[in-house]
Amino acid sequence: MHDARRYHALPSPFAMKRGGVLHGAHVAYETWGKLSAAADNAVLILTGLSPSAHAAAHAEDPSPGWWEDMIGPGKAIDTDRWFVICVNSLGSDKGSTCPASLDPATGEPYRLSFPELSLEDVANAAHAAVSGLGIAQLACLIGCSMGGMSALAYMLLHPGSVRAHISVDTAPRAQPFAIAIRSLQREAIRLDPNWKEGQYSHDSYPEAGMSIARKLGVITYRSAMEWNGRFARIRLNPEQRDDDPFGLEFEVESYLEGHARRFVHTFDPNSYLYLSRASDWFDVAEYGEGDVQRGLERIHIERAMVIGVSTDILFPLEQQEEIAEGLKAAGADVEFVALDSPQGHDAFLVDIENYSRAIGGFLTSLR
Amino acid sequence: MHDARRYHALPSPFAMKRGGVLHGAHVAYETWGKLSAAADNAVLILTGLSPSAHAAAHAEDPSPGWWEDMIGPGKAIDTDRWFVICVNSLGSDKGSTCPASLDPATGEPYRLSFPELSLEDVANAAHAAVSGLGIAQLACLIGCSMGGMSALAYMLLHPGSVRAHISVDTAPRAQPFAIAIRSLQREAIRLDPNWKEGQYSHDSYPEAGMSIARKLGVITYRSAMEWNGRFARIRLNPEQRDDDPFGLEFEVESYLEGHARRFVHTFDPNSYLYLSRASDWFDVAEYGEGDVQRGLERIHIERAMVIGVSTDILFPLEQQEEIAEGLKAAGADVEFVALDSPQGHDAFLVDIENYSRAIGGFLTSLR
Repeated sequence: MHDARRYHALPSPFAMKRGGVLHGAHVAYETWGKLSAAADNAVLILTGLSPSAHAAAHAEDPSPGWWEDMIGPGKAIDTDRWFVICVNSLGSDKGSTCPASLDPATGEPYRLSFPELSLEDVANAAHAAVSGLGIAQLACLIGCSMGGMSALAYMLLHPGSVRAHISVDTAPRAQPFAIAIRSLQREAIRLDPNWKEGQYSHDSYPEAGMSIARKLGVITYRSAMEWNGRFARIRLNPEQRDDDPFGLEFEVESYLEGHARRFVHTFDPNSYLYLSRASDWFDVAEYGEGDVQRGLERIHIERAMVIGVSTDILFPLEQQEEIAEGLKAAGADVEFVALDSPQGHDAFLVDIENYSRAIGGFLTSLR
Repeated sequence: MHDARRYHALPSPFAMKRGGVLHGAHVAYETWGKLSAAADNAVLILTGLSPSAHAAAHAEDPSPGWWEDMIGPGKAIDTDRWFVICVNSLGSDKGSTCPASLDPATGEPYRLSFPELSLEDVANAAHAAVSGLGIAQLACLIGCSMGGMSALAYMLLHPGSVRAHISVDTAPRAQPFAIAIRSLQREAIRLDPNWKEGQYSHDSYPEAGMSIARKLGVITYRSAMEWNGRFARIRLNPEQRDDDPFGLEFEVESYLEGHARRFVHTFDPNSYLYLSRASDWFDVAEYGEGDVQRGLERIHIERAMVIGVSTDILFPLEQQEEIAEGLKAAGADVEFVALDSPQGHDAFLVDIENYSRAIGGFLTSLR
């Protein structure tokens, strides 16, 4: 397998919002399409908690990306027109400097000595990578889920760096329900005796905690409505079951188990903790003297599309409406799209038809 | 502290739905008020997963019960008129025979050798206790949450034993979202190394697993809407926080922690597993050739009140509507009460004003 990943070295030292500093840090990114001579056709995608920069297949890495059906020639994010960049979040172990990286000061992995990470740091690192590509202003900044919050940070911290924005299934800050869920995910990892205050190894790994965290994630990423239709009370066949009296019995349990197994060893537990906590911390109101709307009104862009889903329990629709209202009050031409996709928060990864229509339509209409 | 608990010895052997048998088993119960000479004023309350039979204060045990504001002289469940019984579920360690009880065959606690428990067994045990009190027919059967499913089982298995029914925040069977949540709660307990396949001791106890299970419970028992108003993003005072970099920071986290601490050692982990699994298994459709409505139509009572809450994510309102429709189709005079209480599934424990009005009104109207 070839690798389409590029790396951008961050300024060293790289000062972080909450006081820490990174030396010799970098972020990984991938690109699709071609940057115009005027460097005015760049679209940046900021990701959710765990996806990598590999959002779509690439000549150098033909494996499908996490948003494969959205990005490519003739697709909603049309790489014949746009130069598309996806940056792996600072703090994520999918190629960027993260708690699993070696601390140049000690030659050992940072683990919990990694400085406190905020989404503002994620945004600043992405901005540095974009600047490094010779792009002064993005034609469009797209942020999905956690990446939607990073995108708000990006626009707040770098005025004039974005012309248009697409906000996907996100929020201006976490509500207590989302905080409670993420706090419990972190607790499941931290209570796993194999976590060892972050000093786990591959052979002694907090699998149980990561499994619980992932399953709880999947439960809140989807919707009860979707599952009523999809799983109902269907049971596994006897040959799919083991002898454990409390083992898997219903299909929905097996579905969660499959998700957990695929996830557990593909994302560093400490990265999970740092990015999850950063999601709880982020708050647009910090930029508006305690008020979300006033914070959003500091974002000056030309146009925006804000998309949300009525079945999303993690980032409820009223929070997308808040974003749309704030950006509109700040003077942007804003389109608010409320979808009824049954897939909940994950709809942007599944209901490609509706998201393609919205995002593709918006991008096509950009001059 | 005096104890108002009474015990009813179950027939021995007590045959269970899924094939097991208990010898020398009993259930604990408490009563309030006085049984009429005709034994026609009895109201039975079946509880949720973890509450005891101590639903209200009593001369012999003046400590407040779990439904204290609902039960008593002049209250909605008026003990001046009604002889009120609350039975602790078979399988619960609050006085009834359960996995922590000694197996008379071995002299050792059952633990996982306790036979498979279903809500039908819970219902049969409660019915035996009621019969033991000389009551052939209940004036009213009230079931809350899991107890609402036990109540449906009670009426299906003992035709003619109930005149009126109040169904509170329950369902005719679990939907996949509820199964997923409960499965994950059980997994958190089972993955705790101290669980030891049920062979834990007081000194080596699955505290972490129980804590996660309880927090996940509380998250799904309440509602996001309530928490937006109650906790928002309020942070703990510095003196309430410890040095743990991933420790409690937001009030909602501290609220969950308090709930977990109060719960962890007051409910036996194996009881939790057995009753939780029984909740997933229960399905009214088993009594209706695979159809919920046909199952409900087998229940013949005179009147019913079915109460649900629009903010309940564990037992969504449409499931209470299903119960109301089924009982109506079977010929009962049914009142369906859809409340908008913000407290979610737990509203019946918190929104005493609305539940009192509904339940009190219904009971008063019974001839």
